[in-house]
Amino acid sequence: MNFTGANILSVDQFNRDSIDEIFAVADAMLPYARRQKRTKVLDGAILGNLFFEPSTRTRVSFGTAFNLLGGEVRETTGMESSALAKGESLYDTARVLSSYSDVIAMRHPKSGAVAEFAEGSRVPVINGGDGANEHPTQALLDLYTIKKELAYHGHAVEGMHICMMGDLKFGRTVHSLSRLLALYPNVRFTLISPRELMMPDSVMDALANAGHQVTVTDQVSGSSDADIIYQTRIQQERFTSPQEADQYRGKFRLNSEIYTKHYKPNTVIMHPLPRDSRAEANELDNDLNQNPNLAIFRQADNGVLIRMALFALTLGVADQVKKYECDVNWYSDKRNV
Amino acid sequence: MNFTGANILSVDQFNRDSIDEIFAVADAMLPYARRQKRTKVLDGAILGNLFFEPSTRTRVSFGTAFNLLGGEVRETTGMESSALAKGESLYDTARVLSSYSDVIAMRHPKSGAVAEFAEGSRVPVINGGDGANEHPTQALLDLYTIKKELAYHGHAVEGMHICMMGDLKFGRTVHSLSRLLALYPNVRFTLISPRELMMPDSVMDALANAGHQVTVTDQVSGSSDADIIYQTRIQQERFTSPQEADQYRGKFRLNSEIYTKHYKPNTVIMHPLPRDSRAEANELDNDLNQNPNLAIFRQADNGVLIRMALFALTLGVADQVKKYECDVNWYSDKRNV
Amino acid sequence: MNFTGANILSVDQFNRDSIDEIFAVADAMLPYARRQKRTKVLDGAILGNLFFEPSTRTRVSFGTAFNLLGGEVRETTGMESSALAKGESLYDTARVLSSYSDVIAMRHPKSGAVAEFAEGSRVPVINGGDGANEHPTQALLDLYTIKKELAYHGHAVEGMHICMMGDLKFGRTVHSLSRLLALYPNVRFTLISPRELMMPDSVMDALANAGHQVTVTDQVSGSSDADIIYQTRIQQERFTSPQEADQYRGKFRLNSEIYTKHYKPNTVIMHPLPRDSRAEANELDNDLNQNPNLAIFRQADNGVLIRMALFALTLGVADQVKKYECDVNWYSDKRNV
Repeated sequence: MNFTGANILSVDQFNRDSIDEIFAVADAMLPYARRQKRTKVLDGAILGNLFFEPSTRTRVSFGTAFNLLGGEVRETTGMESSALAKGESLYDTARVLSSYSDVIAMRHPKSGAVAEFAEGSRVPVINGGDGANEHPTQALLDLYTIKKELAYHGHAVEGMHICMMGDLKFGRTVHSLSRLLALYPNVRFTLISPRELMMPDSVMDALANAGHQVTVTDQVSGSSDADIIYQTRIQQERFTSPQEADQYRGKFRLNSEIYTKHYKPNTVIMHPLPRDSRAEANELDNDLNQNPNLAIFRQADNGVLIRMALFALTLGVADQVKKYECDVNWYSDKRNV
Repeated sequence: MNFTGANILSVDQFNRDSIDEIFAVADAMLPYARRQKRTKVLDGAILGNLFFEPSTRTRVSFGTAFNLLGGEVRETTGMESSALAKGESLYDTARVLSSYSDVIAMRHPKSGAVAEFAEGSRVPVINGGDGANEHPTQALLDLYTIKKELAYHGHAVEGMHICMMGDLKFGRTVHSLSRLLALYPNVRFTLISPRELMMPDSVMDALANAGHQVTVTDQVSGSSDADIIYQTRIQQERFTSPQEADQYRGKFRLNSEIYTKHYKPNTVIMHPLPRDSRAEANELDNDLNQNPNLAIFRQADNGVLIRMALFALTLGVADQVKKYECDVNWYSDKRNV
Repeated sequence: MNFTGANILSVDQFNRDSIDEIFAVADAMLPYARRQKRTKVLDGAILGNLFFEPSTRTRVSFGTAFNLLGGEVRETTGMESSALAKGESLYDTARVLSSYSDVIAMRHPKSGAVAEFAEGSRVPVINGGDGANEHPTQALLDLYTIKKELAYHGHAVEGMHICMMGDLKFGRTVHSLSRLLALYPNVRFTLISPRELMMPDSVMDALANAGHQVTVTDQVSGSSDADIIYQTRIQQERFTSPQEADQYRGKFRLNSEIYTKHYKPNTVIMHPLPRDSRAEANELDNDLNQNPNLAIFRQADNGVLIRMALFALTLGVADQVKKYECDVNWYSDKRNV
């Protein structure tokens, strides 16, 4: 696809070529994200960072990515501060707010709202999550993480075995990631969830159409050759009682003991974050924090690379990033640990 | 007036010369606002963007204008996060917060609060709206829009016919705009509102003193030679019952049918935004969105130009903007549509 | 101490040498804070300004200090917008958010939370206040102000006489300042407070161990040779009834009459701000605003210098600030009044 001037609204926009292009640009962003070098390719450009629903990490990740390319960020958070509350249409909001920036990153609690906004926008719009619908930059950073983690072990996305665990019904991230993985040949899926929280048929159909081998289970056992465990949180509000929630959550937890017993030594552990560390949830135990296969914080790092890549591509400067390179003056050693 | 170091608090500060000066600087800002060029004249300067009352578009417009001149923005939104809530005087707040920036844009829910703040400020203060009192940058951008739209049709502000419609009693924007228009000779006004929402006597007196011809009516008909329709919203809370509000709002709506029937083909349509697109209000129908005379989004664009001009003038750099000019690297094509 | 890469969490980290080093760097920041010159030493660096509890002046002061060194600011305010509310540990929050910035300034309502966060952070963390515990940058700016104000009168911190007045029990700032002053020889303290709000034993012990002469009283009289009055607010919620609060607050007020009667002509007046200007509190009267010894706004100015110094030191660029110097283009005259 031609990224310059394009909106990034859904994972359905991408094919293997466009994904490879995004990932190649993301790779090239690493020295800037690590502060080995700095670039000013977007010096003077303005990001409209519109978060009509709170999400600290996604919001800051977009803003940081834009700053790392040399641009400025104008931010709007919360619904109450918005003219939307006074009956303004998304079209009007888009026409006006887009005139204040060069590209927009937007989160909204309503499915489809970002696409509707993009209709009125005069600049490219990147979907930062629209309700239960889409969160394409999360899916891209997840896939990018899988690719990099597997490459570290000498493997490829093609032919891998991924376990997705937890709430597969309402977890937006596993749906989008699955749809991206449907673009790759010969992926094995093990979907581990309570029966009430199974992967929706639409996603199952996409995987079947791609010819993927899918195992559905409510047991953690039997995944001993998984390359990736993608863990998600099970939210209490999905159940009729806290007791029922506790019972389920206990069965779909991951900690050092379960990891050692059920998975091979190099299985990569992922999670979209935030993980709930309260005792009653604790879907991914802190006793795994020192395990080198825990990739959850590398996932967050990769989010910056992916968002930098999307900004560079939609603003048509992906091939000029190095041209505007300069040195970094300040201390940045701990970062690379 | 000498703008360098001055506060911009009220439309009453301006005469024809100072308005012409602001508009000339605003004209010169167009290539930067359109991203044809970039300027760094305010590189390193800091705007204190203090919005003690929410207003997304005005806040972002000020911030973007400052970024487009090369400066940084430090933002404060909401009352609760303010020491004002702990009994601090506006004078103290001003003394302290003004020490953190080079110029301040401020909105406050209380009439007169921005002028009071300016007493304590060590840097120029621009009023971004203080309750029912003043919103001078809105009045300036409205007048600037009128001037540009009329110039497009070969006309001048002098001698034009403007219809103001809707809530003329509580609509702060029509009061300030009227006071600015009183500086121009020979303007005809048609003021269309429910009797309960007529233009206040103070504004009527200003127009009479300026020698303007003013027609007051509660009928949309009879404005067939108007050059400008300035539509405003009628807020439900002004009426004793929703039924009464609905009845009134229905009479003072503007849509394609009414426009075609009552106005000449080139009449320019303005609105201070946001417009209420809910069915029960809908004072300016979406069926006019494709009408080239609908100037409401050009108004918003002009707001950035006016605010850039005021920053450049109060910080004494209006004649140096071009000196710090540089190229734009990134995609910015859709913007100029 | 070696500042590069260090966290700034507590005043207990400092000795006389490290304080002298911070103050020397702060002195060198004056031309930049006054806009006589500009520096870009942190061009491209990103401050994560994390205010999980509101504090407009501290937040903006940190942000401005970072901008004045040439860096960018990504801001997070409020608890509700944070993943912490969804059960995320401070460790996880720190691992992720620290990957988005080069240094972090953080305020949190819970004692010890900033130090806990720093454990997970990959970049230096500066404590901007953690509940009743610490606010080291406030203590440093207070001490820096004392030093500069006394130097103006030809005196030194050594041998001075300081009165602290008001709520000395719950006032975090007077505790931290006292602990810093314990590093200097031969300081005289007069601690004036209601019996219910006396300085805690832990601070009294630190002063005694330092060999300082301390007078404890509930009377304003008897301080006629004080060099510094450090006034604090007495908050109504510390008392069982508003009547009791009013009675106390009346006794520990400072205004022109009391100042003239009880203190020598050059006694410097300080206050951590905000001061409560409502009639029922009014611990520091506006009738002192024109008194040249009122140092409260110079305190706020000094806060920017101290924070600039801490950023330059922790990021290892304190000796390069001048190298990246450039000119200021815009009007900045009123600032130096």
